[in-house]
Amino acid sequence: MHPETKTQWSFLFEDFEDPKSERGKMMLGGKGAALAHMTDIGLPVPPGFIITTACCNEYHSNHNIFPEGLWEEVVAKLSVIEDRQGKRFGDRENPLLVSVRSGSPFSMPGMMDTILNLGLNDDTVDGLAIQTRNERFAWDSYRRFVGLFGQIVLDVEHDKFEKVLDRFKTGGKSDADLNVEELKEVVAIFKRIIASEGKQEFPLDVSEQLKMAIAAVFDSWMGRRAVDYRRVNKIPGDLGTAVNIQAMVFGNLGDDSGTGVCFTRNPATGERKLYGEYLLNAQGEDVVAGIRTPNPISALAGQMPEIYEELSSISDRLESNYHEMQDIEFTIERGKLFILQTRAGKRTGAAAVKIAVAMVREGLIDEKEALRRISPQQFDQLLHPMIDPAAKLDVLAKGLPASPGAAHGKVVFSPDEAEEYAREGEDVVLVRKETSPDDFHGMVGAKAILTMRGGMTSHAAVVARGMGKPCVVGATALDINYGHNEFTVDGVTIPKGEWITVDGTTGKVYKGQAPTIEPELDEDFEQLMKWSDEYRRLDVWANADTGHDSAVARGYGAQGVGLCRTEHMFFDDERLEVMREMILASGVGEREKALAKLLPYQKRDFAEIFRAMDGLPVTIRLLDPPLHEFLPNKVELMDEVTELKFQARRASPSEMNDLLDALTDKRKLMRRVDQLTETNPMLGLRGCRLGILVPEVTRTQVRAIFEAACEVKGDGVTVIPEVMVPLVSTPEEFVNQARLVRSIADQIINQNGQDLEYSVGTMIELPRAALVADKIAAEADFFSFGTNDLTQTTLGLSRDDSGRFLPHYVEQKIFPDDPFQTIDRAGVGELVRIAVEKGRAANPDLKIGVCGEHGGDPRSIHFFNSLDIDYVSCSPFRVPIARLSAARAEIGENGEAGM
Amino acid sequence: MHPETKTQWSFLFEDFEDPKSERGKMMLGGKGAALAHMTDIGLPVPPGFIITTACCNEYHSNHNIFPEGLWEEVVAKLSVIEDRQGKRFGDRENPLLVSVRSGSPFSMPGMMDTILNLGLNDDTVDGLAIQTRNERFAWDSYRRFVGLFGQIVLDVEHDKFEKVLDRFKTGGKSDADLNVEELKEVVAIFKRIIASEGKQEFPLDVSEQLKMAIAAVFDSWMGRRAVDYRRVNKIPGDLGTAVNIQAMVFGNLGDDSGTGVCFTRNPATGERKLYGEYLLNAQGEDVVAGIRTPNPISALAGQMPEIYEELSSISDRLESNYHEMQDIEFTIERGKLFILQTRAGKRTGAAAVKIAVAMVREGLIDEKEALRRISPQQFDQLLHPMIDPAAKLDVLAKGLPASPGAAHGKVVFSPDEAEEYAREGEDVVLVRKETSPDDFHGMVGAKAILTMRGGMTSHAAVVARGMGKPCVVGATALDINYGHNEFTVDGVTIPKGEWITVDGTTGKVYKGQAPTIEPELDEDFEQLMKWSDEYRRLDVWANADTGHDSAVARGYGAQGVGLCRTEHMFFDDERLEVMREMILASGVGEREKALAKLLPYQKRDFAEIFRAMDGLPVTIRLLDPPLHEFLPNKVELMDEVTELKFQARRASPSEMNDLLDALTDKRKLMRRVDQLTETNPMLGLRGCRLGILVPEVTRTQVRAIFEAACEVKGDGVTVIPEVMVPLVSTPEEFVNQARLVRSIADQIINQNGQDLEYSVGTMIELPRAALVADKIAAEADFFSFGTNDLTQTTLGLSRDDSGRFLPHYVEQKIFPDDPFQTIDRAGVGELVRIAVEKGRAANPDLKIGVCGEHGGDPRSIHFFNSLDIDYVSCSPFRVPIARLSAARAEIGENGEAGM
Repeated sequence: MHPETKTQWSFLFEDFEDPKSERGKMMLGGKGAALAHMTDIGLPVPPGFIITTACCNEYHSNHNIFPEGLWEEVVAKLSVIEDRQGKRFGDRENPLLVSVRSGSPFSMPGMMDTILNLGLNDDTVDGLAIQTRNERFAWDSYRRFVGLFGQIVLDVEHDKFEKVLDRFKTGGKSDADLNVEELKEVVAIFKRIIASEGKQEFPLDVSEQLKMAIAAVFDSWMGRRAVDYRRVNKIPGDLGTAVNIQAMVFGNLGDDSGTGVCFTRNPATGERKLYGEYLLNAQGEDVVAGIRTPNPISALAGQMPEIYEELSSISDRLESNYHEMQDIEFTIERGKLFILQTRAGKRTGAAAVKIAVAMVREGLIDEKEALRRISPQQFDQLLHPMIDPAAKLDVLAKGLPASPGAAHGKVVFSPDEAEEYAREGEDVVLVRKETSPDDFHGMVGAKAILTMRGGMTSHAAVVARGMGKPCVVGATALDINYGHNEFTVDGVTIPKGEWITVDGTTGKVYKGQAPTIEPELDEDFEQLMKWSDEYRRLDVWANADTGHDSAVARGYGAQGVGLCRTEHMFFDDERLEVMREMILASGVGEREKALAKLLPYQKRDFAEIFRAMDGLPVTIRLLDPPLHEFLPNKVELMDEVTELKFQARRASPSEMNDLLDALTDKRKLMRRVDQLTETNPMLGLRGCRLGILVPEVTRTQVRAIFEAACEVKGDGVTVIPEVMVPLVSTPEEFVNQARLVRSIADQIINQNGQDLEYSVGTMIELPRAALVADKIAAEADFFSFGTNDLTQTTLGLSRDDSGRFLPHYVEQKIFPDDPFQTIDRAGVGELVRIAVEKGRAANPDLKIGVCGEHGGDPRSIHFFNSLDIDYVSCSPFRVPIARLSAARAEIGENGEAGM
Repeated sequence: MHPETKTQWSFLFEDFEDPKSERGKMMLGGKGAALAHMTDIGLPVPPGFIITTACCNEYHSNHNIFPEGLWEEVVAKLSVIEDRQGKRFGDRENPLLVSVRSGSPFSMPGMMDTILNLGLNDDTVDGLAIQTRNERFAWDSYRRFVGLFGQIVLDVEHDKFEKVLDRFKTGGKSDADLNVEELKEVVAIFKRIIASEGKQEFPLDVSEQLKMAIAAVFDSWMGRRAVDYRRVNKIPGDLGTAVNIQAMVFGNLGDDSGTGVCFTRNPATGERKLYGEYLLNAQGEDVVAGIRTPNPISALAGQMPEIYEELSSISDRLESNYHEMQDIEFTIERGKLFILQTRAGKRTGAAAVKIAVAMVREGLIDEKEALRRISPQQFDQLLHPMIDPAAKLDVLAKGLPASPGAAHGKVVFSPDEAEEYAREGEDVVLVRKETSPDDFHGMVGAKAILTMRGGMTSHAAVVARGMGKPCVVGATALDINYGHNEFTVDGVTIPKGEWITVDGTTGKVYKGQAPTIEPELDEDFEQLMKWSDEYRRLDVWANADTGHDSAVARGYGAQGVGLCRTEHMFFDDERLEVMREMILASGVGEREKALAKLLPYQKRDFAEIFRAMDGLPVTIRLLDPPLHEFLPNKVELMDEVTELKFQARRASPSEMNDLLDALTDKRKLMRRVDQLTETNPMLGLRGCRLGILVPEVTRTQVRAIFEAACEVKGDGVTVIPEVMVPLVSTPEEFVNQARLVRSIADQIINQNGQDLEYSVGTMIELPRAALVADKIAAEADFFSFGTNDLTQTTLGLSRDDSGRFLPHYVEQKIFPDDPFQTIDRAGVGELVRIAVEKGRAANPDLKIGVCGEHGGDPRSIHFFNSLDIDYVSCSPFRVPIARLSAARAEIGENGEAGM
């Protein structure tokens, strides 16, 4: 700093030029900028001044010493306020009291909050009693101030003060019941505690109080929680915090005083009407504390019509100035309204949509800004039932929020029971250690699914999302005992049949039936979707395995099917049996027999999907079973063998033969299962490896696809099949399968005399595929990134097994996010980037999409939008969020509001 | 081709300028270039000419039509030879006969070999009888020529001719016993067979014969086996083959004639002494066929001293011209020596080393060239086990010691079976009457080869030496019955599947599995190692888990331990028990108890390794157990539970309590195993994930390492510990563990008052680690590439499970090699390259090594040498090969000789 240029470290509310600007926010912090702006436009704001963020930075770079000139500025500005209020700071007759509040450019937890009534000491407390004509209030304020100052500025544990109060609160007394004498005693004890436990004695000098409070605000910027928060949220450390120093006003000086909060619109519904609550003769914290029940703001119109009028008009002015729904704090002191704070109001998803659309209509914001105002998380709320926010609930357990929405049902532990109960019209929640294709029918029957193991892309999670069913996975605290039909968590045992509620949006599980609210998709929702479609560059496709799913996806605006997982078609009982026959087949003949049985199922499914997607592309992935998902459970098989052995021991000779036959069959099956069991099935015989080793599998599937396509096309439907080869790691693998696909497809198309165009492409789901993408692209029509598997291999992380350490990793910030939920940009994302670049360079016509679960994740979509990718594909229920996210990614998300 | 520039398609042996040059080899092929060179320097070579490789290419690009002018050139050159020999091609009185041989720039199986005596027909056969004064010889030559021409040029199956001969060979007659009349009858029948089975009738026109033979050589360049071989060995298809046409000389014109093969040095031992064998009054094929037993070349000195002298002097000249041991074919026609071929001689590993070192001493080659002359495969032979001389063994049979080393396996009789068994992991010995190129795949699969027929230069011998596989040929006492799948020798019958041992160094075959021991390495070996060390840039470290392994590695020249796998220390029974306790522990207390038991084991192991590696770095990897490797087998546990249940059913009341307790314990264990069982353990809770989740594991290990280090250092040993964090994927993981390591290490070092330097680094074994290597390098002292795991994740390929499809993949050329054997350059290699580049850029002091299995693979070492890497680490027994390979990689491998 040059000695010539004297930096101004602080500004009176009225002295900063254009505080509403970005510069204003950066220098004064959000809170200070709002106070200055309101002062600017003549709103009734108690006088005050702001120490800038620059001063905070100077303080920290200068070994926590106030920069030169700061204190002189503070003293000068304080005297302006004294003059304006007709009070003197530290005066024993007519003292000026101030609040000291931090305020950084971005809202940030971990920062020092508010110190009220600074300026009180053993002398001025009497002056306050005179001013307010309320000795008890004065001493109560004093004891609060001493406690808060001791805690925040002098580092005394909050508990120490609480315990003192507890001693006085015998016989059901509350804080409010303490009399003046008792309060004086409390203050004395507080000061003694501070002297022995705190950094120093409680300062009776009011200037000392203010200096220390300002320093405490600065120090809190470098506090552990604030630093951690900035690191996690990537907020630069050199923004600094401002300090707001403002004259106190009192809402508790009688029935002509009061305090309250109001929103310029209803934050739950979005309705354009003043919304909020207030209390007469009260301080701000009384409203928050909930000891007295506040009145709805509408009642103020009756009690203080002029004040209500003034508040309404201020509310309108602030909204039109900020182009945003405001959350306003106010105090009425002896019939005079003061505005203490205004900021963008938090709101529900429904309100956010309604407000954004309304504001466009009202000309307050444009369409892009409307899109920026709706966070995908809020938007998601609209699409699923949610738990009534008003409900009081006991959290039973917490897991990963695998599939959003809330539902309740009776606990069942087996898929058969889930199916059976559902058939009888009972609502059930299926609780499993983990799920497998064997559980599929149970998941169909259940209202929600809860598992002990697994991550965001585990079987339960993927299937539940596909069904749009609430699901919580990886609730590791659950101790499930199938044998006893119960689970225990934190000492609470929940038997079969008891009600629980699963909230897949938050990952929380509650005891009992929590009340839920059904979503409504109105014209505002549709309007927002229309705007999203106008502004986004990425197409949005859906992952759908059935005609029904495809129709749902199309209803939500999907522009194609990006992933049809043919193996999912075999999850229901009857088909699973045939699928097993195919997998367990020990020779070509046996296998072809099983395949022949599968063909008609597949053909029917494909035909339904083609019809649902008339005119849109349908991407069908060739069989990609990690075989173990379809194999009978070895342990269960062993149990069956044991049971048969027991029976044989007490069997009569006539029963014996049958039993021995059964035993032989079972053992044969066990041997075969044993042969096929893989140590690491995820890295085993799956994907195109299966098709290369057993070409008849590919042949049958391609036959089913193109027979269905020709048939449906014959009915006048426009069919656009895209055949996708899974788990390719070398161009040779792709060429091997693509040749087979093309030869059979062409043969069937020719036989049918059709003119049908199709394409053959591949999943990019192994690191090697990404690294040699140019070589593969030269042979392929399209790429589709299977980011789930790519995440598993790039990070060496099994989605089935990572549940035991992944939460710990995310908590410890070793991973910034669950990489199965939000794409790992530095690793997986880098491979995607490399592959897109190489792929496009080698084949400019290459179509590129993403079909992993990340295709429905807003932050991941933002990343994909930054690459030269054509579409993302996600589960049908995520399509609207993907459309919105794609638009937000394209127009830029700055200026984002909402919670 | 411009009409103005007339390309010359052929050259007389004496007309090509500098045939020994690279250009000579490329245009004339290896064989042709050698013939031209020998003619150049005045050696007695029968006259001839060479059609160039360029002509072959022109032929193929011109729809298999002879290029313009070729035939005219052939006719002109033939007439030069006619003049020189005083004979006429096709003349019935005094016919010129020629040999036609292929010869490509690189030796290549699958190419057409040799046609002898071309120019014979019903007329010239009489002329030959006159020339040689031997009617029987003339007709025998004619019947051989017709048969060979029919087979090679006219596509008649060899068997058809063999069957005819068999008909004549009644009553123990051999080919040699057929008289002139019989031979004439054979010729007539051969011609009839050709007429009915072949592409056309046998051509009596000698020009037609020559044209067709030349075309057949060209065609064989594009034959399936040749094309496959080129693809596998990455030999470009546009090299083409030359055609050598040369006047015939005869070694079977009486006892002043003969034929033989000789090496300028002993190809088995490397001794500098003419080595080979010959037969008087015989043709070349008689030596190869093994019908008569040839004499050792030394005998020639007695029988024909002048010829022997001349041969010796030619041998010296050729060696000093080629700076390489030569393999020479010669014929003596009526007392005159002719050289028919010379080429680099194939040799055993021991001979290769001895010869290379000797040639440096003799000033023939320099040290670098010596290193280039030893292929790692040959070198490997030196390191192969031999049969323990102390073992008492039953000799089953004896044959020629065709390829050194000893191995045992189960007897199989067909190449297909050998391949099939090998794929299933069985050790087999392939036993054949004789081998042909058709048996090649079986020889690849076999551990050793044993044949009934053939000499040291037979197919089996040559190929086995090339593979470095033990081989015994010409074990004539064997009676092999393919039909019964057995052989009998001296009354002992050995059926398929029985174990035998083949000692290719002595030529002996033993019943059963003979014990083998390591070979001893002599001073030539040491010399070569010394040169390797001088020329290599890469250091060579070893992977060793015990003091003993470390000592062995050091003995082989290892410069450090690159990987000590601490979990390997727990594979023995007693320790495994404690390891299980640790893994199964359900709380910190239980776990710490188990860890405390492990600490002394570890400390002792580390101390032994440190002592063995005094002064050299020892890299210790923190625990990286894929947990399943240590868990009790679930199926076995279930069996135990079942057994206990059975017992409980018939137990007396007094036994019951114990049984129930046992059952409860077992069930508890099963539940715990169940909890810990992972779907994909390779991608599960392992590596640093374990250390992060359970820091006491890391703490205990680091304590053991540094307590051992301090103790050993106290004894005057120089200890350089390098602690390696496994399975890192993010810098945060590394920092977490590195901090823990450093804090405990420093604490122990301080406590011991030692001044001990150590480093902390990480394995790079996940794709993500490679992609963010810069961030990790900023925190780490070293990187070590774990290329095994990196291969698994980059390719999505489980080492444990890929056996079912990997062989198929390699066979179908979807993978060029087994990626676990030779590094996948395009995928895994690319990640290594990226990581090295990023790592070095971020931390120029970073030490970088490779500790995966690839560290001992010559081709992989070649790749690693091309990167900025400091060392490779391999298993102790591969250290010498790694040292040699590193040197060869650095000096360039061109000019490579040997097989």
